[in-house]
Amino acid sequence: MSNIGEFDLIERISAQFRDNQANGAGTLGIGDDCAVLPQREGLDTLVTTDLLIEERHFLLSDISPWQLGWKSAAVNISDIAAMGGRPEATFLSIALPKKFPSKVHSSGAGTTDSVPVADWVDEFIGGFKALSGRFGVPLLGGDTSASPDKLFINVTVLGSCPHGAAILRSGAKAGDLVCVTGPLGDAGAGLKLILDRAASPDGSDASGGQASCHSERSRGIFSLQEQTLIRRHYEPVPRVAEGIALRECGGVHAMMDISDGIASDLRHILKASGVLGADIDLKSLPLSDELRAVCGERGLDPYELAVSGGEDYELLLTVAPEALEKARQAVGSLSVIGRITSEPGIRWEGGSHKDYQGFTHF
Amino acid sequence: MSNIGEFDLIERISAQFRDNQANGAGTLGIGDDCAVLPQREGLDTLVTTDLLIEERHFLLSDISPWQLGWKSAAVNISDIAAMGGRPEATFLSIALPKKFPSKVHSSGAGTTDSVPVADWVDEFIGGFKALSGRFGVPLLGGDTSASPDKLFINVTVLGSCPHGAAILRSGAKAGDLVCVTGPLGDAGAGLKLILDRAASPDGSDASGGQASCHSERSRGIFSLQEQTLIRRHYEPVPRVAEGIALRECGGVHAMMDISDGIASDLRHILKASGVLGADIDLKSLPLSDELRAVCGERGLDPYELAVSGGEDYELLLTVAPEALEKARQAVGSLSVIGRITSEPGIRWEGGSHKDYQGFTHF
Repeated sequence: MSNIGEFDLIERISAQFRDNQANGAGTLGIGDDCAVLPQREGLDTLVTTDLLIEERHFLLSDISPWQLGWKSAAVNISDIAAMGGRPEATFLSIALPKKFPSKVHSSGAGTTDSVPVADWVDEFIGGFKALSGRFGVPLLGGDTSASPDKLFINVTVLGSCPHGAAILRSGAKAGDLVCVTGPLGDAGAGLKLILDRAASPDGSDASGGQASCHSERSRGIFSLQEQTLIRRHYEPVPRVAEGIALRECGGVHAMMDISDGIASDLRHILKASGVLGADIDLKSLPLSDELRAVCGERGLDPYELAVSGGEDYELLLTVAPEALEKARQAVGSLSVIGRITSEPGIRWEGGSHKDYQGFTHF
Repeated sequence: MSNIGEFDLIERISAQFRDNQANGAGTLGIGDDCAVLPQREGLDTLVTTDLLIEERHFLLSDISPWQLGWKSAAVNISDIAAMGGRPEATFLSIALPKKFPSKVHSSGAGTTDSVPVADWVDEFIGGFKALSGRFGVPLLGGDTSASPDKLFINVTVLGSCPHGAAILRSGAKAGDLVCVTGPLGDAGAGLKLILDRAASPDGSDASGGQASCHSERSRGIFSLQEQTLIRRHYEPVPRVAEGIALRECGGVHAMMDISDGIASDLRHILKASGVLGADIDLKSLPLSDELRAVCGERGLDPYELAVSGGEDYELLLTVAPEALEKARQAVGSLSVIGRITSEPGIRWEGGSHKDYQGFTHF
């Protein structure tokens, strides 16, 4: 951090958000001890917070700062969507390493040997704003620091929904249909492509200890379809409008966003709801053409990626059968993938009958 | 993190807070995609978030997990106090290193060679809860992860105050009296004692690369007065009741908490308020007996510590002269240290006429 100070950094960040600081009468953003947001009778405030940590959630050699900014906002706003809420404000804490790794990916220039910290921050905030601006959400505060080693990000998002109307994980009932709002497995496949390349002899960087660094040439090895899957991993789109529509349509009993894969996430719904099990029909899982094609070429199991891959950030929900049509109309596309049952455990039907597991960050 | 998983960690943390999960009708805490807090017409929500990073804000070899938990909650709740707000909920993000440094301080046992991660977490949450429980504030959410290297903490606190009533930094007027709610310099002196010992040959740990590790014996070199100053650094008490009383009494124009030292913090008030300067009388700064005594013994300048030391977490405010008596009655103890002027810059009167600077985290 020799070339950028704390106040410079805050200035660089807030400058990009100046046009949407005035988020409404009585709202106060960056610059004081706290942000201030007026409350309104009949609404609930929703709060979520998520860590993104270098080498744990991303590699600076692979994700561009723009993509990292986008994803940092997206995964948090997705939690608001998962309650059927409207995102209202973001708060960004970022600890920047004194020195970036010798190779950092930059959108403009591919992988370059060095990126000035100030440029990196501008690009990061550009991505953060591109995603949050899509939903009209201002950045109202945060914290900045130097980091002794790795890059750390923590984002907090506040949202709102009508009082008592948030769709929780705990409302599933036996007989409910289990649904998802879009294709599964793309993000997991994208991550696998990145990690496989990182582990290959061409992709590794013997000198730096980083898990992956690659030249323009090796970046070029991905087909267009593979690049699409990688983009789905780096640039997820939270299902905000879908979440709100599903809350409003009635009959949706439980909802969450898919961050760890449905094998793991569905278990959270079952546990929270005190219901016993689910039958899932693997053949009903929505798979993208890109996922089918790339799995075919590479000999991968698309169902395993769809079930355990994680980070799709689609919505997973349970809905009363009689409300299905209304829910379907509300969001345009909704795939029924199974049913909540009173028989213990999750049964994966129509596939290889593995006991699919979600991944955890430990 | 070989001996503790993510769900275990969340369970350990939420278990200690189970008794205050039910924070009120309609409030939902740990366990879903978001926390839910009902809004009320006529109130504003206050939001603050702060990073605490190993080797940047603390050393694991010196601060006990209990103290670190306490301080993590305290510095954030202090930001709510600085607006005259009431803290309502905390959110804790924590990334734990796979391996703790070879020497970690533990309250119970002094510095020991190794502390199991689970014990460290329990003690950390104990301190976090001791501070936040003092103000009746529940932990309603957060995030956990392994960290590839250093320990990272980010705390977000939500608070509330009547709509439009938060005391901002931007309201100071020429002629206002500059006041503080309690002694200055203690925390800065405590930090200096810790850093000096860390830098001494006896205090350094040649093997581990950590800045400081010390045995029971070397811990014993601090006098009782010195230990008091160190406690003021590690265990600050946010001035919540004082902040609320000062908001309610009327006539307080600007307020913030003292995190970087009044030299730096007062400049924030001047800049935000668009006022030009201040005259500060060094002889009026409230200094504790412990600070005077320790500075006398060690040949330190207590005024420099009071002005630039930082982390006292007292409140710094400007008040209309005619409202001083009411403000004083509201908080019991209030020291007038100077006056806002229309002459540019801060003039430090009665001391060595240095141009005192606050510190920054870069």
